[in-house]
Amino acid sequence: MPNTHLSQLYRGPFGLLTDLYQLTMAYGYWRSGLYNRQANFHLFYRKPPFQNGFAISAGLELAIDFLSQFRFSAADIQYLGGLKGSTGAPLFNEAFLNYLQRMQLELTVHAMPEGTAAFPNQPILRVEGPLLQCQLVETGLLTLVNFSTLLATKAARIVDAAEGDSVLEFGMRRSQGLDGAMTAARATYIGGVHATSNVMAGRLYGIPVRGTHAHSWVMAYEDELLAFQNYAEALPGNCIFLVDTYDTEAGVKHAVSVGKWLREQGYDMNGIRLDSGDLTVLSKTARQILDAAGFTQTAIVASNDLDEYRIAQLKKEGAKITVWGVGTRLATGHGDPALGGVYKLSAIQNEHGEWEDRIKRSEEAVKASNPGLLQVWRSEAKQEHPGDALYDIRYGMEGAQIWDESSGSWGQVATEKGHNLLVPVLDRGQLVYDFPKLSEVRSYAMAQWQQFVAQPSYPYGLSPALHEVKSTMMATHS
Amino acid sequence: MPNTHLSQLYRGPFGLLTDLYQLTMAYGYWRSGLYNRQANFHLFYRKPPFQNGFAISAGLELAIDFLSQFRFSAADIQYLGGLKGSTGAPLFNEAFLNYLQRMQLELTVHAMPEGTAAFPNQPILRVEGPLLQCQLVETGLLTLVNFSTLLATKAARIVDAAEGDSVLEFGMRRSQGLDGAMTAARATYIGGVHATSNVMAGRLYGIPVRGTHAHSWVMAYEDELLAFQNYAEALPGNCIFLVDTYDTEAGVKHAVSVGKWLREQGYDMNGIRLDSGDLTVLSKTARQILDAAGFTQTAIVASNDLDEYRIAQLKKEGAKITVWGVGTRLATGHGDPALGGVYKLSAIQNEHGEWEDRIKRSEEAVKASNPGLLQVWRSEAKQEHPGDALYDIRYGMEGAQIWDESSGSWGQVATEKGHNLLVPVLDRGQLVYDFPKLSEVRSYAMAQWQQFVAQPSYPYGLSPALHEVKSTMMATHS
Repeated sequence: MPNTHLSQLYRGPFGLLTDLYQLTMAYGYWRSGLYNRQANFHLFYRKPPFQNGFAISAGLELAIDFLSQFRFSAADIQYLGGLKGSTGAPLFNEAFLNYLQRMQLELTVHAMPEGTAAFPNQPILRVEGPLLQCQLVETGLLTLVNFSTLLATKAARIVDAAEGDSVLEFGMRRSQGLDGAMTAARATYIGGVHATSNVMAGRLYGIPVRGTHAHSWVMAYEDELLAFQNYAEALPGNCIFLVDTYDTEAGVKHAVSVGKWLREQGYDMNGIRLDSGDLTVLSKTARQILDAAGFTQTAIVASNDLDEYRIAQLKKEGAKITVWGVGTRLATGHGDPALGGVYKLSAIQNEHGEWEDRIKRSEEAVKASNPGLLQVWRSEAKQEHPGDALYDIRYGMEGAQIWDESSGSWGQVATEKGHNLLVPVLDRGQLVYDFPKLSEVRSYAMAQWQQFVAQPSYPYGLSPALHEVKSTMMATHS
Repeated sequence: MPNTHLSQLYRGPFGLLTDLYQLTMAYGYWRSGLYNRQANFHLFYRKPPFQNGFAISAGLELAIDFLSQFRFSAADIQYLGGLKGSTGAPLFNEAFLNYLQRMQLELTVHAMPEGTAAFPNQPILRVEGPLLQCQLVETGLLTLVNFSTLLATKAARIVDAAEGDSVLEFGMRRSQGLDGAMTAARATYIGGVHATSNVMAGRLYGIPVRGTHAHSWVMAYEDELLAFQNYAEALPGNCIFLVDTYDTEAGVKHAVSVGKWLREQGYDMNGIRLDSGDLTVLSKTARQILDAAGFTQTAIVASNDLDEYRIAQLKKEGAKITVWGVGTRLATGHGDPALGGVYKLSAIQNEHGEWEDRIKRSEEAVKASNPGLLQVWRSEAKQEHPGDALYDIRYGMEGAQIWDESSGSWGQVATEKGHNLLVPVLDRGQLVYDFPKLSEVRSYAMAQWQQFVAQPSYPYGLSPALHEVKSTMMATHS
């Protein structure tokens, strides 16, 4: 069973956590008789976040947890019954509301396991089922997968910049809401951060929790030395002293003097933390003072609006920082605070039960969607022509060619060894997937990151048959 | 009683929704005997979001709802009991955990009513109470007030750019988590948007809900005309047709033909929606087609990565858009996805029960905090020298001067007519405040916006006594 903070922190049910238009469309499908037609939707993104080339997909377990609680309470139904259209008449009729109240999801979901490197236009989720049901769950699926994927990717970038140093997620206070913080802790752990400051995320997800102390600790005492000494007495095994409340150099010296006392008690001072000023200069000074006093193993933790760019810059300048506390810019996806993932109808069965392809063409070619029932083939890494082929499961791969839509040219992809990225998760509402432990998801995500970050021009594209179907539809659909 | 989505959607309790360091500091205070000392903290921001000059404060009712559920469950305590420090010993002892489990908050809170224009360094909340308790709630208060204030401000900017047109919040699918979406709907409504697509926010907050339909509706049918016709038959009183699925001009013509059918049935077509392409050109074309067919009252709704800058640009280009559907860039605070609000200790009682001032000086002067027990005086608008004075309630205003920290100069502020911005909300844990209805908060916020946006160099600063105390402390503290 999915087991995330959604089922553990929320009361549910989640039926109203959707856009109104999903409900008006559902009502329309219900009235026009299409509601039970089998439909196929793909959830994908078009543009990689942070100009990263690919994204680390995440949020699947949250999405399935959401679906498992997607129902309407009596209060929800009562509220919907009171909604009026512009003419003052009720928006929904009684029979539809009764239908909603009794509805049980029968969706079939295939998905990339969390942590998979996903390229633009590749389905992260494929949702098949009654048209009405596929439609109602769109908003929640997007919310959960978009944000998790965004932050897993941001975290991987930051962990990469830290070149093996520990990265701690400290962003709760700047998160976009309380479960923004929960989701951030979970997704950034998948992306490779080592620990979080968020204690609830520690409890519910088993993520290691870390923390130092705040300026207020120092300010609560008459002076800094007294403050450090009191902290050391209370928590001798957990001492990372924040040294910049008044004057950083003096702060480091106070830490050293308490560190010596800790040694006499048989403890190590774990570290000091810098939270303002020129972190390169201050960390070098701090390192000298610490080393001169024999505290060569004492960590120097830095925080203060860090992200992958600042960490890389500080490393380049030779900053003596060994642990990176990253908050605001990690937990809110600074630079690209939203992944623009979408959820598009790609096929629907006609009255004879035959699939009919659908695309959205729109005013912008880049916004055109792919038709059919799609799967992603990824060839095994260590062979000639590794690459990803997006293909329709009804036609198969059809040879080793792929059409690269961004360059408008054919490429090659090895088809002998490899695997399909989308795996069965729900079969008509029944769970058919074992969710891996979060630590396993993290290891997998970090391996995916290493593999694909090393190949900035990794080939991915459409199978010949899919390219042909799409080209024909683009030219003729109206 | 506070009544927000926190108490309605979550199970609670919220004790672990905090940073680990709050708990380690709490333990330290408890061990060193400071835990019950009366302390005073201010929650404020330093830099206005979106270079806006001021922020529309929001999130108070969420913050109080959070405090009302700030307890530790048995499972929380058990988890904390299992945490270990770097030496492998338990981080917290049994007696402390027992204390936490029994703890009841006795905090006194003064706050700006939601919707108040808040300038940099002005306390939005002032929290007084036992040091340990003040510390534990820091993270949650910041999370809730930071994000709500950010989005109320973003919304006000977008509503301003729309110059009286309706603005609809459509951002749920791109929100940072499910309650990111709930908080966004609430805060952006305070900031002046007219409706949301988020149905749960409609139910819990009474915010009007609006929606159109998605591309999938059009794609579910064999052609666009059939799709519009079916929608009109199902929801004749709620027709806003999305016209860009295949070809916008053709789409508008299909809408017109179904609009005529609607008229024959006694209904009005409410609008059409554009979601891609050159919105200026397409809206002008659409307006011509609609007007020529006699649909002069039909709204033109636009969406697609809109924000205050794009709306202003489209208006300048003469776009014929009358309703703005704003999603991603509103719900995530595009440009500045986090308000950097902080929560700083400003005074603590000594063993004799006398207040002692505290500041944080730090490496960056701009990060220095203000000492004391602060209140904000705002003089009534229509008089000579309107302005805000930040002052210590123990010394009072002391005359009509204010020290402007950014320019380093004295200014004047009228002191005869006006009022204090911080009002009592909690008195030792007891609610002493009537939360206004959200619609009243919205009206107040919009009036505040109008008042202060018209005065880009509105004076605010420190009272003479506060300036003197702070200067002395800045010069001498170590």
